[in-house]
Amino acid sequence: MPKAIDHDQRRSYIIDVAWGLIMKGGIEAATMREIAAEAGFANGALKHYFPGKDEIIEGAYQRALGAMGDHVAVAIAGKRGLAALRAFVETTLPVDEDSKSAARVLLSFWEHGVANERLRAAYYEHLDAWRGALTRLIREARSSGEIRSTSPDDELVDEIVLVNIGATVLAVAGPQFVTPEALRRLVDGFFDRL
Amino acid sequence: MPKAIDHDQRRSYIIDVAWGLIMKGGIEAATMREIAAEAGFANGALKHYFPGKDEIIEGAYQRALGAMGDHVAVAIAGKRGLAALRAFVETTLPVDEDSKSAARVLLSFWEHGVANERLRAAYYEHLDAWRGALTRLIREARSSGEIRSTSPDDELVDEIVLVNIGATVLAVAGPQFVTPEALRRLVDGFFDRL
Repeated sequence: MPKAIDHDQRRSYIIDVAWGLIMKGGIEAATMREIAAEAGFANGALKHYFPGKDEIIEGAYQRALGAMGDHVAVAIAGKRGLAALRAFVETTLPVDEDSKSAARVLLSFWEHGVANERLRAAYYEHLDAWRGALTRLIREARSSGEIRSTSPDDELVDEIVLVNIGATVLAVAGPQFVTPEALRRLVDGFFDRL
Repeated sequence: MPKAIDHDQRRSYIIDVAWGLIMKGGIEAATMREIAAEAGFANGALKHYFPGKDEIIEGAYQRALGAMGDHVAVAIAGKRGLAALRAFVETTLPVDEDSKSAARVLLSFWEHGVANERLRAAYYEHLDAWRGALTRLIREARSSGEIRSTSPDDELVDEIVLVNIGATVLAVAGPQFVTPEALRRLVDGFFDRL
């Protein structure tokens, strides 16, 4: 097997291990030492794949976002305007086990990333892309007459993004306060208003 | 000076120190060792005041919530129904430096608290009380005819809570994406709908 593939596989495996540790004990439990021990690596060997914890956390974060991006792509395939916007909004809410697990990783990423300029920049880039995609769909739905709300695009995007992040936190920190039914009702209410 | 007061002062001072460390480097930077070093305590001496990190994080969290509770009490004093609800919602959004600092502590508390049953229970209790207070004000405003929206109380409360938590995360993790102007516009939009 070519060495590059082996390297990527190992990196992916290390992220699996870090992901599992974050699920169990959060960002503090996922130390380089614990990740190495759990992965069956010597402490120093881990650094061949990731120079430090920041890069491992970033890898887990990228995986969480990548999976969400894939789900969104499938959900909005062949849809336009309002239907695509709704599929986008619904798919990115933490309602199933996979997305709740991703929510745990995101919470750790936010906590850990604030102190690291590169991780902060990665998140800013994601927020920009996320907001841009929502804005495009809102404009599409306005131009086809599906959205008649006079609320500015930015205000609608703010509401979607903030509710999504709030739901992500509660999916981890207070799951009984953010049931799939409650989220569905909020989404229905939002789209009724448009 | 009586010993009990001295004890409380020291606990409060330790929380100051932990708060400062969380501001600088998040939950991982606020280790028992770092807190002791920064406070000028021997490692073991810290345990006289807090048995462990969980209790220190809980203390910082209680202080953040306590300050917010005080601001809310001042803001809604003498108000009823819709005016009180609006003051409550506005006061709890992270728009000034104090509340952004509290937001950083809350983000660390969420991340750290998930793995600790007692901290989780403390947060559930807070969510219950928060939602209860919002629900009471919504009912008051409905009974006086100030709210005519047909959206169920729970849906309005969900929206307020999720937007607030989302704004708290972004105030720390992406402040340029959650300006006071954007929050004001969201709040205006929400209250126009009621």
